[in-house]
Amino acid sequence: MLTELRREAYEANLALPRLGLINLTFGNASAIDRENGIFAIKPSGVPYENLTPDAMVLVDLEGKVAEGSLKPSSDTPTHRRLFLAFEGIGGVVHTHSSHATAFAQAGRAIPNLGTTHADYFNGEVPVTRRMTEPEIAGAYEWETGNVIVETFAKRSPEEVPGVLVYRHAPFSWGNTAAKAVENSVAIECVAQMALMTLQLSPDIAPIEPELLRRHFFRKHGADAYYGQSGGNC
Amino acid sequence: MLTELRREAYEANLALPRLGLINLTFGNASAIDRENGIFAIKPSGVPYENLTPDAMVLVDLEGKVAEGSLKPSSDTPTHRRLFLAFEGIGGVVHTHSSHATAFAQAGRAIPNLGTTHADYFNGEVPVTRRMTEPEIAGAYEWETGNVIVETFAKRSPEEVPGVLVYRHAPFSWGNTAAKAVENSVAIECVAQMALMTLQLSPDIAPIEPELLRRHFFRKHGADAYYGQSGGNC
Amino acid sequence: MLTELRREAYEANLALPRLGLINLTFGNASAIDRENGIFAIKPSGVPYENLTPDAMVLVDLEGKVAEGSLKPSSDTPTHRRLFLAFEGIGGVVHTHSSHATAFAQAGRAIPNLGTTHADYFNGEVPVTRRMTEPEIAGAYEWETGNVIVETFAKRSPEEVPGVLVYRHAPFSWGNTAAKAVENSVAIECVAQMALMTLQLSPDIAPIEPELLRRHFFRKHGADAYYGQSGGNC
Amino acid sequence: MLTELRREAYEANLALPRLGLINLTFGNASAIDRENGIFAIKPSGVPYENLTPDAMVLVDLEGKVAEGSLKPSSDTPTHRRLFLAFEGIGGVVHTHSSHATAFAQAGRAIPNLGTTHADYFNGEVPVTRRMTEPEIAGAYEWETGNVIVETFAKRSPEEVPGVLVYRHAPFSWGNTAAKAVENSVAIECVAQMALMTLQLSPDIAPIEPELLRRHFFRKHGADAYYGQSGGNC
Repeated sequence: MLTELRREAYEANLALPRLGLINLTFGNASAIDRENGIFAIKPSGVPYENLTPDAMVLVDLEGKVAEGSLKPSSDTPTHRRLFLAFEGIGGVVHTHSSHATAFAQAGRAIPNLGTTHADYFNGEVPVTRRMTEPEIAGAYEWETGNVIVETFAKRSPEEVPGVLVYRHAPFSWGNTAAKAVENSVAIECVAQMALMTLQLSPDIAPIEPELLRRHFFRKHGADAYYGQSGGNC
Repeated sequence: MLTELRREAYEANLALPRLGLINLTFGNASAIDRENGIFAIKPSGVPYENLTPDAMVLVDLEGKVAEGSLKPSSDTPTHRRLFLAFEGIGGVVHTHSSHATAFAQAGRAIPNLGTTHADYFNGEVPVTRRMTEPEIAGAYEWETGNVIVETFAKRSPEEVPGVLVYRHAPFSWGNTAAKAVENSVAIECVAQMALMTLQLSPDIAPIEPELLRRHFFRKHGADAYYGQSGGNC
Repeated sequence: MLTELRREAYEANLALPRLGLINLTFGNASAIDRENGIFAIKPSGVPYENLTPDAMVLVDLEGKVAEGSLKPSSDTPTHRRLFLAFEGIGGVVHTHSSHATAFAQAGRAIPNLGTTHADYFNGEVPVTRRMTEPEIAGAYEWETGNVIVETFAKRSPEEVPGVLVYRHAPFSWGNTAAKAVENSVAIECVAQMALMTLQLSPDIAPIEPELLRRHFFRKHGADAYYGQSGGNC
Repeated sequence: MLTELRREAYEANLALPRLGLINLTFGNASAIDRENGIFAIKPSGVPYENLTPDAMVLVDLEGKVAEGSLKPSSDTPTHRRLFLAFEGIGGVVHTHSSHATAFAQAGRAIPNLGTTHADYFNGEVPVTRRMTEPEIAGAYEWETGNVIVETFAKRSPEEVPGVLVYRHAPFSWGNTAAKAVENSVAIECVAQMALMTLQLSPDIAPIEPELLRRHFFRKHGADAYYGQSGGNC
């Protein structure tokens, strides 16, 4: 069932350690088939070197396992919450990549300090609010999804395809799982650059709005001219 | 004798340079056979590329070489002290991994600043007290074990499976040598993240206790739900 | 057409991710044939692993595509501007290498703090001024070239073969595309060293002028004695 | 002539980029045959991937090329000065490894902050004084050797087998070229740890003298007990 979807999720998961975003078993990727309302996600706690496409777990949007003999990632409810709220996305990625996680642990958004950031995110990569004790003691992973959704009440998840969960680590998404992986690379990359920029200039202001707009929209939207296709890339 | 044990220790030692935790010949790993009261440990000063399972030295809990033509690691008495004091552990690892060693050199514990840390350690990774001149001039490596044990007088070595030796470097342990290696990766990883978090927010408080509990116990203890098996992972 | 030129540009582009200067599709390299007034440049947004010599786009000095079925890099007008202004150069490279980009984002030149820097650059690696809103809204990539050229009004592009574009990232050049790549490695390398030097000594002065001269001119110019050939290397 | 010596120098040179100590063509290694008063050294400006044992240049202690069709490294007079002054050494290595070079550029010694350092160096890794204008304008590379020798007037080059040249970069040595390489790894490693330790604790004092002695002499001198041989390792 859904062989292509399993493969897409599998390849996105394998990319994470290869790209240096993952140590140990921290992190996971998923891909959704919107027609069937089913997503494929990494099984919980399985080392990356033992993964196969068949090991991916298929889960429906009510959270029930549709196919798979292994338990899905413990973060599955967070992925499900994001697939429900952000209807345009096709994949979700969670890592503990080190520089982005440092910002999350410090409770700070990744400020937009240059064009590398602006090429991917139309504004800062925000950090969620601190979760309450009932949220943490309750359906914790689902509530994690809720605080992410809350953070995007006045933001576009298309224009800012990633977030830092307070004290935890980044989540990203995209129109495909592969694009969500690319956005997770971008988050780590801009976090590293921002950390060093703040070291050189602790009170640096964000990038000028005109430069942000120019860079973001040369890669995104109707007037994009970066890449071979035009339009969204 | 104890072919399996030799292999376990050998593989744990080989993992250290492969995982980037070791430069030169700094560091060593051991594995214990509790039934026979024998542990296998790296020979002293032998380059990692020349190691074989047969080169592992078998040592008993009185510190006598049970089998092996090479001298065991000069840190053998520290490993032995930990095997005697922490009865649940099956392996010990010592590295000079760079970020963790920086905390050790600064005489600072690695504070628990986020969920990556909380997934592995139920609290800070503590630093031992400064050793006295007689301890250093005497049975130095055994005394190193003693100050570690002293540091855990009011801590659980199961819930905090690692330590920084003051001015020196980290030691970790686990129910197997492979798990001790994994914990040594975790120590380096959380040290790196903590260093960067402190750069972004020098006065950051530790993680909220409810979030620490949630993360630690979703991976450890009777109510764990991370991974495929439930229970301790 | 211009098979050798395509290959030179192709190999310079491939070197960028291999040398760790490039993540994702950030960055590009070009090589010029001065006789024909044609340069070869990376196509826009094509992943490095899919590049071939044939995929390189040939562009003339008026900015028209001379040969190639793909769109050239969106940064093509910047390369063209530099080829027009700096007549001695044979290749241009643009990266978002992380340490150099941090200086660009902070709006700071890379100060010349030691002999590693002096071996490559006869002075600081400068940062361009902030671009105006009309420059950004207009022919942005061409104007980027213009602010670089303006920055070199009183500097020699031979003696300082690189620059940081404000809020953006480094550009470098050289008498060949391969040399431009080498200079982009040097920029990243000296940026990393400078960042750490500033951490150790925030008010450090630039290198002493006599030491700068000695190192720069032992590798460059008529009296050079570094390398096998003498003269410029 | 001296096939073994060429090979020793060749292998030491090749180790430098493999160990991550060298970028581009910065750095070189040499090995001496004390009986013949000849040392083998890297040719100037030749990329590491093109080196062969035959490309090594043989130089005598008066500085004359004894055999070799290529020009020796421009740093040859520094190596020669060290071979003349430090009679016990068999190899010299020069790198621009990034963390050690940051200390050199800041004009700061690498303080001895922990046992990793103490395992290799019986005290700080010193930095040379600023060279005078005549020294720089004159026989610069020979004078570089002179300021190193001056720095060791009251230090033992056996107990501190390395130095930072002010504003420049590290040199190291050892009883063989391979040991000099190992010491250059150690310098970079302790520089990195020291930089991070100073970030965590800017006013940290050096390691306690009793701990320095214990670690240094468990690896060096008549009472050494680290490694398989006893004695110097």
